[in-house]
Amino acid sequence: MTSPSSSSAKTPEFGRPLQGWRLRCYTIIFEADTRAGRLFDLGLIAMVLLSLLTVMLDSVASIHNEHGRWLTGLEIFFTAVFTVEYLLRLACVRQPLRYALSFYGIVDLLAVLPTYLAFFVPELYALVDVRVLRLLRVFRILKLNAYVAEYASLALALRASSRKISVFITAVLMIVLVMGTVMYVVEGPINGFSSIPTSVYWAITTMTTVGFGDITPKTDLGRAIASLMMLLGWGVLAVPTGIVTAEMSAQRLASAPKATTRSCHVCLSEGHQADSKFCRHCGATLPAYQRD
Amino acid sequence: MTSPSSSSAKTPEFGRPLQGWRLRCYTIIFEADTRAGRLFDLGLIAMVLLSLLTVMLDSVASIHNEHGRWLTGLEIFFTAVFTVEYLLRLACVRQPLRYALSFYGIVDLLAVLPTYLAFFVPELYALVDVRVLRLLRVFRILKLNAYVAEYASLALALRASSRKISVFITAVLMIVLVMGTVMYVVEGPINGFSSIPTSVYWAITTMTTVGFGDITPKTDLGRAIASLMMLLGWGVLAVPTGIVTAEMSAQRLASAPKATTRSCHVCLSEGHQADSKFCRHCGATLPAYQRD
Amino acid sequence: MTSPSSSSAKTPEFGRPLQGWRLRCYTIIFEADTRAGRLFDLGLIAMVLLSLLTVMLDSVASIHNEHGRWLTGLEIFFTAVFTVEYLLRLACVRQPLRYALSFYGIVDLLAVLPTYLAFFVPELYALVDVRVLRLLRVFRILKLNAYVAEYASLALALRASSRKISVFITAVLMIVLVMGTVMYVVEGPINGFSSIPTSVYWAITTMTTVGFGDITPKTDLGRAIASLMMLLGWGVLAVPTGIVTAEMSAQRLASAPKATTRSCHVCLSEGHQADSKFCRHCGATLPAYQRD
Amino acid sequence: MTSPSSSSAKTPEFGRPLQGWRLRCYTIIFEADTRAGRLFDLGLIAMVLLSLLTVMLDSVASIHNEHGRWLTGLEIFFTAVFTVEYLLRLACVRQPLRYALSFYGIVDLLAVLPTYLAFFVPELYALVDVRVLRLLRVFRILKLNAYVAEYASLALALRASSRKISVFITAVLMIVLVMGTVMYVVEGPINGFSSIPTSVYWAITTMTTVGFGDITPKTDLGRAIASLMMLLGWGVLAVPTGIVTAEMSAQRLASAPKATTRSCHVCLSEGHQADSKFCRHCGATLPAYQRD
Repeated sequence: MTSPSSSSAKTPEFGRPLQGWRLRCYTIIFEADTRAGRLFDLGLIAMVLLSLLTVMLDSVASIHNEHGRWLTGLEIFFTAVFTVEYLLRLACVRQPLRYALSFYGIVDLLAVLPTYLAFFVPELYALVDVRVLRLLRVFRILKLNAYVAEYASLALALRASSRKISVFITAVLMIVLVMGTVMYVVEGPINGFSSIPTSVYWAITTMTTVGFGDITPKTDLGRAIASLMMLLGWGVLAVPTGIVTAEMSAQRLASAPKATTRSCHVCLSEGHQADSKFCRHCGATLPAYQRD
Repeated sequence: MTSPSSSSAKTPEFGRPLQGWRLRCYTIIFEADTRAGRLFDLGLIAMVLLSLLTVMLDSVASIHNEHGRWLTGLEIFFTAVFTVEYLLRLACVRQPLRYALSFYGIVDLLAVLPTYLAFFVPELYALVDVRVLRLLRVFRILKLNAYVAEYASLALALRASSRKISVFITAVLMIVLVMGTVMYVVEGPINGFSSIPTSVYWAITTMTTVGFGDITPKTDLGRAIASLMMLLGWGVLAVPTGIVTAEMSAQRLASAPKATTRSCHVCLSEGHQADSKFCRHCGATLPAYQRD
Repeated sequence: MTSPSSSSAKTPEFGRPLQGWRLRCYTIIFEADTRAGRLFDLGLIAMVLLSLLTVMLDSVASIHNEHGRWLTGLEIFFTAVFTVEYLLRLACVRQPLRYALSFYGIVDLLAVLPTYLAFFVPELYALVDVRVLRLLRVFRILKLNAYVAEYASLALALRASSRKISVFITAVLMIVLVMGTVMYVVEGPINGFSSIPTSVYWAITTMTTVGFGDITPKTDLGRAIASLMMLLGWGVLAVPTGIVTAEMSAQRLASAPKATTRSCHVCLSEGHQADSKFCRHCGATLPAYQRD
Repeated sequence: MTSPSSSSAKTPEFGRPLQGWRLRCYTIIFEADTRAGRLFDLGLIAMVLLSLLTVMLDSVASIHNEHGRWLTGLEIFFTAVFTVEYLLRLACVRQPLRYALSFYGIVDLLAVLPTYLAFFVPELYALVDVRVLRLLRVFRILKLNAYVAEYASLALALRASSRKISVFITAVLMIVLVMGTVMYVVEGPINGFSSIPTSVYWAITTMTTVGFGDITPKTDLGRAIASLMMLLGWGVLAVPTGIVTAEMSAQRLASAPKATTRSCHVCLSEGHQADSKFCRHCGATLPAYQRD
């Protein structure tokens, strides 16, 4: 899109093109094609990782007692930097509201919010770790667009199968609700199944084969039902893999093997089966097959 | 099927077509094409979910102590509504017995029965949760027929492989029985393996990789046998996935990819199949395919 | 094979054909084509299942105290029947030694042996459960040959990949040995890792995602190493399934969809891609594609 | 490469070809084509396995108390042998530094180093088990090159998908970090979640379905979040396998199987491919393919 000012950004949204310092800011912060942009993103990754480390270390009681003040100081510094960066972002896009409501905008806000909330509710301080989601943005610097593209194709595959997945998840939820309730009736609060929600939690730990062991069935009937659930949860994984493997092997053994390099000397076609005598494209006689 | 009365239902079974209020009931309750039918189903979903929530909350001791009477009252109300609905269903189909014995008929009966049984056996009250299965019926309202169809295709796939699955399950049951017995002999009741059924229960938790930890082997021989079982249970999942992945990759790398690098010299398009003679975009003759 | 006596068995091995009562025995016990043979096998299944139930119930302390004498008596009865049957089998085949050393022969021997051994070593009594393997034989009666055939094709598939499986298992064993040793050094006997074999046992419970919890790492370094092992053991399952799904979806989306029914009206070839304009076999123009 | 001395080794690196005793050493130690070379490798496997057994037995307290001196003596013997072998290896290759820095060179060094380090830091003694990695080298003796080749193809497949795997692992790490932090905030140190690193460790045990149970959520909200994580970790395995199975079955049922029912009217053979023009058995022209 042309513009009288040559220092305008190519897109981004409608309205007046960016100019001057706002354009420069935008180029550095949002794009990664220039050297300054790349350096900015690298510095951002480093800061995010350092701030994560700070919060994680601060949560360990022994380290907190010794170095708590330094760590808190560091964290205030990081939060200040990220806040300034966030305000800059708001300032140098054309439609700040649109940015603020986008996925990355919300992530950037959540990256600084917990520190401020912690003034009022100190226990929320640890939620600073949510800023790890900022690392999603800085994939560009490492030319990880290709990586994201790979993931996008997988996401596309999942979306195509979203119906099947919905049905599957609904079935699983129904099963754990019914089974959890049955175990609540069979075992009862005496044996640890203190309520239906608790029993459903147990049913999920069992069907997903996690098996914490904080709640376990004690009665024989309860253990029998638990056995059924375990075999079901594990079988949901084992049965399809077995079927798929058996089918693939059957295909490979029975049908035309892909890997034959036999070629017809008349029409030069390849890939004829090991037991073919004639070329299936032109009818010429194939030379005898010698296995390596 | 034609009928002298124009207000008859199109199907359902043999005998006299439905008329009058019975027809109206049938249309609203069993079918979801009219606005009333859709509203009815929506209201039904809402009621089922609310009643489930009621029962689940009532099972939590603290909530029961505080609001138990309200929750019980709510539940009696829901059960009354569902009972009336069930009786209406029986009343407005042509063959009540056929409906009562169908899958959905039994589900609808199980949805109200626990509350009545709870008068005699209070512990069965929680089985009210079984009414979650009613949600299977109300898939229609959300035009989830497509979802059910997706699931039906998967069910069809499973049925086609039902023999393999039977053999697999039988093998697993034999293994857990033999291994459970061996561990019972090796470890003995001192170490928690108090009987053969208990040991089989342990064997199932181990082979399905759930691993509650309520019973664990203490002797060296027992731990060695347990290690074998764990590797087996996990390997049943890991080995086929590894084989399948390797085979798919081998197919991709070695054989002619569906989209090769053949290019048409007229329109310069690429990716023609190995055995194509003509360009599928412009119709020009493709040069003979030479494998690199 | 012909024989002067018309009441000879068709095969079985070399030497004199079976005659008289030996032939009749053979037909009933080993084959299942006649009505007597089928009844024999059905009775055998029933007996095996009943004897299994007997042993399992007898292992439960409460039931043993009440009915122990009846159960022991029943078990002696079953063992007597199986012993007589085993001797009959030896008597009515041509080469008893060959049968005794075959898989089924050993299974049949193991079915009766534990009861006799239990006279000397009472704790081995429970190994009677090994006779469940006899159920493998009686698959014929239920015409489960087809089932066994299905399983045989899967076994064939596994044998074809036996090399890959060997390498995989060896790699897993090396990993658990090295990781187990590292955890033994890092955590030490104080934290439950009392010896290298114990640590290897723990490493197996972790890599196979069973996670009993009887031994758990307490130090930070130990937990970090454990985290790596858990991600590895789970990733070995998750990564291939993800790759396979992504590849299948990519094939489906990008390459010629199998399901296109477009056909060329000139050469009648089918399966052209949705965006093809010309037939790839004969070059004729394809009619425009209408998606359903 | 020719050389005036006929007793030179064919390769290995640049510089003077090996001669005399160095050549003989090289042939025996590094290659396995001669009988001496094979015997050497067999002896090496035996020694490695024996030394592993020695270290493992020595770690068991009871055995250590009884036979500790013998085992330590054995281990010193093995280490001496391996040290001499290592020095010989260094002596008889042309570029010792290159060997010392190669993978196998480092493995061989790690095989002897722990015993020497144990003089200074006795707890490291157990790391002798790292010498199990030496078994990778001796695959040649058992002509397991084919095995390694199989594994190499799988490694190649993994490398081709390395981007997808990186994205996947990064996503998993982000999820466990965020979820671990959330649980730290929700549950708190009172319930065992003593710091963020500990909570992340718990999150990994939960997502990978290991479920040790040393740390478990106690609050209702914590259990709800844990349920989500468990369904996610298990679903990552279950959903793709289900999709793959459904897709394969759909392909099988709906599309033209690779081996169709086309039959040749001359030789009556069946199963020709959909696009074949000539019978691959007898060369006759196949009738045009009509889909049913």
